[in-house]
Amino acid sequence: MATLKVYADRRSQPTRAVILFCKVNGIEFEEVETQLFSNDLNTPEYQAINPMKKVPAIALGDFTLFESHAILTYLACSYHVPDHWYPVDLSKRAKLQSVLDWHHANLRYGAMGYLFSTMLAPLFGKSPNAELAADCEQKLVQSFETIENVWLKDDAKFLLGYDQPSIADLSLVSEIMQLHMLGDEERERMIGPYKKVQRWIADVKEATNPHFDEVHQCLFDVIASLKQNA
Amino acid sequence: MATLKVYADRRSQPTRAVILFCKVNGIEFEEVETQLFSNDLNTPEYQAINPMKKVPAIALGDFTLFESHAILTYLACSYHVPDHWYPVDLSKRAKLQSVLDWHHANLRYGAMGYLFSTMLAPLFGKSPNAELAADCEQKLVQSFETIENVWLKDDAKFLLGYDQPSIADLSLVSEIMQLHMLGDEERERMIGPYKKVQRWIADVKEATNPHFDEVHQCLFDVIASLKQNA
Repeated sequence: MATLKVYADRRSQPTRAVILFCKVNGIEFEEVETQLFSNDLNTPEYQAINPMKKVPAIALGDFTLFESHAILTYLACSYHVPDHWYPVDLSKRAKLQSVLDWHHANLRYGAMGYLFSTMLAPLFGKSPNAELAADCEQKLVQSFETIENVWLKDDAKFLLGYDQPSIADLSLVSEIMQLHMLGDEERERMIGPYKKVQRWIADVKEATNPHFDEVHQCLFDVIASLKQNA
Repeated sequence: MATLKVYADRRSQPTRAVILFCKVNGIEFEEVETQLFSNDLNTPEYQAINPMKKVPAIALGDFTLFESHAILTYLACSYHVPDHWYPVDLSKRAKLQSVLDWHHANLRYGAMGYLFSTMLAPLFGKSPNAELAADCEQKLVQSFETIENVWLKDDAKFLLGYDQPSIADLSLVSEIMQLHMLGDEERERMIGPYKKVQRWIADVKEATNPHFDEVHQCLFDVIASLKQNA
């Protein structure tokens, strides 16, 4: 079998979800560093892999793929990983797919949008946009509300009432981890009321460590460097 | 087998994609009219089916599901529909999933966002938002660019170079059809340059008629009624 290549920048939350999935499942891969906001994304070679100029993407021989959820489901089906990551049972799989689809216009829109309309704006030569930030914060808080009261059922540890994590847990938690960039106080203001969400993040971390900490180290390095340059 | 119930408002583009899929494939279902912007979405009975208070959703006995892409993939796997709708082959399915995932933050964000920040804003007691509209238009035009130059390969009729439609064709075309609400001139300004996109829409229509026209009739009725009340 050809070597799996993962085109990655660990500062990207979907990249981290894919790398974490590979590491936790012992899937061998070559990590091809592909820096966001750099010319790495603009080369003809990379655009043949991902014309959207984003990360992550994968290549396996001639087969290439982008969009992290498509990658996670493809890897879960192609490698022999335990069923809980992406259940074969049609009803369970459909429910999981529903969480993954929901994610795009809710948690991801809110979290990414909030970061880019506040603290990250100046780094890209833009002014913070208070109106957009308020809209994104509302979406983000609604998303926590949904995770707390819909996806984290009763006392189950993971999404959809499961006692083991799925690819949806990896995707959503990787997204939420990015909010550490906001600093403790602002992050606490948003996530503070959601006790089940906080316990779930800790459970996903525990279930996937030591890989979780290793894969997220990059994020905390970025945060430390931003603080130093502030 | 229990009767498939589809909770539907045909003014919603993802609802139309689901109903069209069922009709084209001869899947029997009961259409439960569930009006957007009405109390239909707020009843405890409906919230047990879709706590997001949106349409479409389905129920099959005790099993319930929301998010149109999750519904389409579930139906394609549960009923005996021709393979081209959602191929069993892992690589083909992954590529299709990539289009479906891309859709959320690109074509759907752009098309929905543009409509709600321009002509639909006053109907919801809001002012049009020129800055947001410009951002959404950019995303929408970029999405047409991607469909034209990435997904519609060479001279193939349908997305990803296929000669028969998939669930992604239904989802994306249903979304684009909503832009008829803008009127011919404004719609032409956006989609005019994309000849392959226009031919593809006609091909999807042809491949799924008479159901396509029947399912979209509701949209043209809404447009006629808005014009009359303008």
